[in-house]
Amino acid sequence: MTSTQQVRDTIPLTLADLQCARARIAAAVLATPLWLNDPLSREFAVPIHFKLENLQPTGSFKLRGATHKIDRLLAAGAAPRGVIAASAGNHAQGVARAALVKGLAATVVMPVAAPLTKIEACRGLAAEVILAGANLEEAKLVAERLAGERGLAFVHPYDDWEIIAGQASVGLEIIEALPSATLVVVPLGGGGLIAGVALAIKLQRPDVRIVGVQTDSVAPFRRFLDDGSLETVSLAAHTIADGIKVKAPGVLTRRVIARYVDAIVTVDDNAIAEAMVCLLERTRTIGEGAGVVALAALLKGKVVPQPDDRVVVVVSGGNADMTLVGRSIDYGLASSGRLMSVAVRVADSPGRLAALLGVVAEHGMNVRHVEHRRGELHVPVGMTEIIMQIETRDFAHQGELLDHFAGQGLDARNLIAAAV
Amino acid sequence: MTSTQQVRDTIPLTLADLQCARARIAAAVLATPLWLNDPLSREFAVPIHFKLENLQPTGSFKLRGATHKIDRLLAAGAAPRGVIAASAGNHAQGVARAALVKGLAATVVMPVAAPLTKIEACRGLAAEVILAGANLEEAKLVAERLAGERGLAFVHPYDDWEIIAGQASVGLEIIEALPSATLVVVPLGGGGLIAGVALAIKLQRPDVRIVGVQTDSVAPFRRFLDDGSLETVSLAAHTIADGIKVKAPGVLTRRVIARYVDAIVTVDDNAIAEAMVCLLERTRTIGEGAGVVALAALLKGKVVPQPDDRVVVVVSGGNADMTLVGRSIDYGLASSGRLMSVAVRVADSPGRLAALLGVVAEHGMNVRHVEHRRGELHVPVGMTEIIMQIETRDFAHQGELLDHFAGQGLDARNLIAAAV
Repeated sequence: MTSTQQVRDTIPLTLADLQCARARIAAAVLATPLWLNDPLSREFAVPIHFKLENLQPTGSFKLRGATHKIDRLLAAGAAPRGVIAASAGNHAQGVARAALVKGLAATVVMPVAAPLTKIEACRGLAAEVILAGANLEEAKLVAERLAGERGLAFVHPYDDWEIIAGQASVGLEIIEALPSATLVVVPLGGGGLIAGVALAIKLQRPDVRIVGVQTDSVAPFRRFLDDGSLETVSLAAHTIADGIKVKAPGVLTRRVIARYVDAIVTVDDNAIAEAMVCLLERTRTIGEGAGVVALAALLKGKVVPQPDDRVVVVVSGGNADMTLVGRSIDYGLASSGRLMSVAVRVADSPGRLAALLGVVAEHGMNVRHVEHRRGELHVPVGMTEIIMQIETRDFAHQGELLDHFAGQGLDARNLIAAAV
Repeated sequence: MTSTQQVRDTIPLTLADLQCARARIAAAVLATPLWLNDPLSREFAVPIHFKLENLQPTGSFKLRGATHKIDRLLAAGAAPRGVIAASAGNHAQGVARAALVKGLAATVVMPVAAPLTKIEACRGLAAEVILAGANLEEAKLVAERLAGERGLAFVHPYDDWEIIAGQASVGLEIIEALPSATLVVVPLGGGGLIAGVALAIKLQRPDVRIVGVQTDSVAPFRRFLDDGSLETVSLAAHTIADGIKVKAPGVLTRRVIARYVDAIVTVDDNAIAEAMVCLLERTRTIGEGAGVVALAALLKGKVVPQPDDRVVVVVSGGNADMTLVGRSIDYGLASSGRLMSVAVRVADSPGRLAALLGVVAEHGMNVRHVEHRRGELHVPVGMTEIIMQIETRDFAHQGELLDHFAGQGLDARNLIAAAV
């Protein structure tokens, strides 16, 4: 390694810097709970803890870095007219609330199609919201231009040492609450969170393993630890983990990741949806897609705890679209045997649907939706096909109903079982 | 008041008793967060805090009382063979976990139709689960019989001073975290939680107002503070707040309520569903029906904060059925303009449905479900009615689509707007 390379790779943060940052932001952010989860710990036979950043007042860890950055700008007298940021979500709310608490004006540039709930959340925190640009990259260009025109300090979402020092408080809290932690799994987008967490932990406990998790369809870091390469990604790619859909991973965060992160894995959208439901059922809290990728990696065996591990899963945020939460719940219900779609063919004569629904009721099941089909090619003439979406107790309960229909000589198929 | 009456109304718990109880259970229960909620505080113009007992390891406050009762039984050598309880839900999990932590055997009797998830939760906590009885009353009789036969100590869900002293830790934590609280709103079923909270608070701060909230369809306490009467309730009554569906309110809890609770109000199932969605969106946590009645009372104006109030809303539990959570989300989406069902009549000729869906797509809306109706009496011959369930941004967004259809001379009706 040349000395130029060494200078380029310098990480100018010490443990004391991180501890200072934590002290500076303590009054404005929540020291979120680190909670042992009973059922998951039983399932994996090692203690599994959640670090619940989704319970942060703005719903994500972003509040930490933004609060620290604004604190430093104020200390340096560098934001006399306020701050500006570009974000479609969590960073915007973090900057807005951090600025509000410090009595500073905040401007947030969001893409024109930003969800109304996120716009309203920022306005509720007294930020000026400017809708500009078709996507985040365009919004960012507008924010940078406005920063110059209006004399506002631009707050980057991750590629800034003061932001990273703020996010590091997550790692300090983890080690303080669980000094014996051995494996920490962290969502990875631009890299601000994992850089902070890895620094805070490795500077104290170099033996703890840090694993980053990306979403499969937007994974610039996929091979980064193997050969230093960054995968070119398309922002047109779809993922329900939009919070870590980052085209340009940080230049500074990359230095920390190269030195202190032990492994990087990816998970797909189905795994993420399952993890959302798992988190809901196990902790009674909502995680957004990007927030639960670390849990998804654990559930899908992308991260495998060793027998003596003590695991921390960072849930980085919870600002999920309610529509998506509802859909994930249905997905989770279907995959755990609590929702079924069954197609039954019966003779097309009066009373057949009523009789069928009577059987369903006898089994203590609740019908959600019924459809009656006739005159389709796959249904023989003189027959009708009835499709029922039914709430059940479990797969065995579903089996009882199908057995009952079979015993009556009826042709019944479980449509969801085939699809899942 | 006669002296007999006075003896009968004695409340044998002092503040020191409650503090002892809290110390005894501290290692086994979570001191749950008391969090100020920004958006609700803005909306009501007074600080609104949530006491989040839904984040307790077993998902409800019941763990506190059960842990204290078991601690006292052990101290007295009164449960050499273990404990038994009857419950369809939260009390069962509380007893199971409390016993597990203390190394005691627990038996739980649940009605035969108990949800599998709740049965599994108790088994996961090493409890023996016995399914018996068509309802909770029958399960309780079985548990009392088994207690005698097997020499097990029966743990009542609320009508026991040691249970009440355990629940009181919720009140102690509230006053410690927010000494300036003036109004505390608490779910009310059998009365164990509110009795504990009211005692803990009023013995220190008699000026704080305590309000109990029942579900409208099962409200034995409805007129209790007015004339001392208890309403006869039917357990056949339906409510989504099944955790506070209690036929026989406590005899002991009643004494505390009579002396220390300032008001009792009721809320209906629609208000409870709205409160579930509100809690999800504002705190990113799930509350079960019974858990959110206090929030429902606030949202519906059943409890009206005064201008200088500092309010605490107790969220008592979060073990909601996921199916109900999904339905509540849809209800919340519809009532906030993010889900619409629109019926449009078009000429019954090829390409009409495609054109309609094209318009919906142009407005940036997502279609969830489409139905095509023809040959019904209310649809003129030669016309067809298309019903679409669509995800929208807000009511204004819905209006744009309806205006577009109207501009094309189409007959379009918003079915959800009519229903909500």
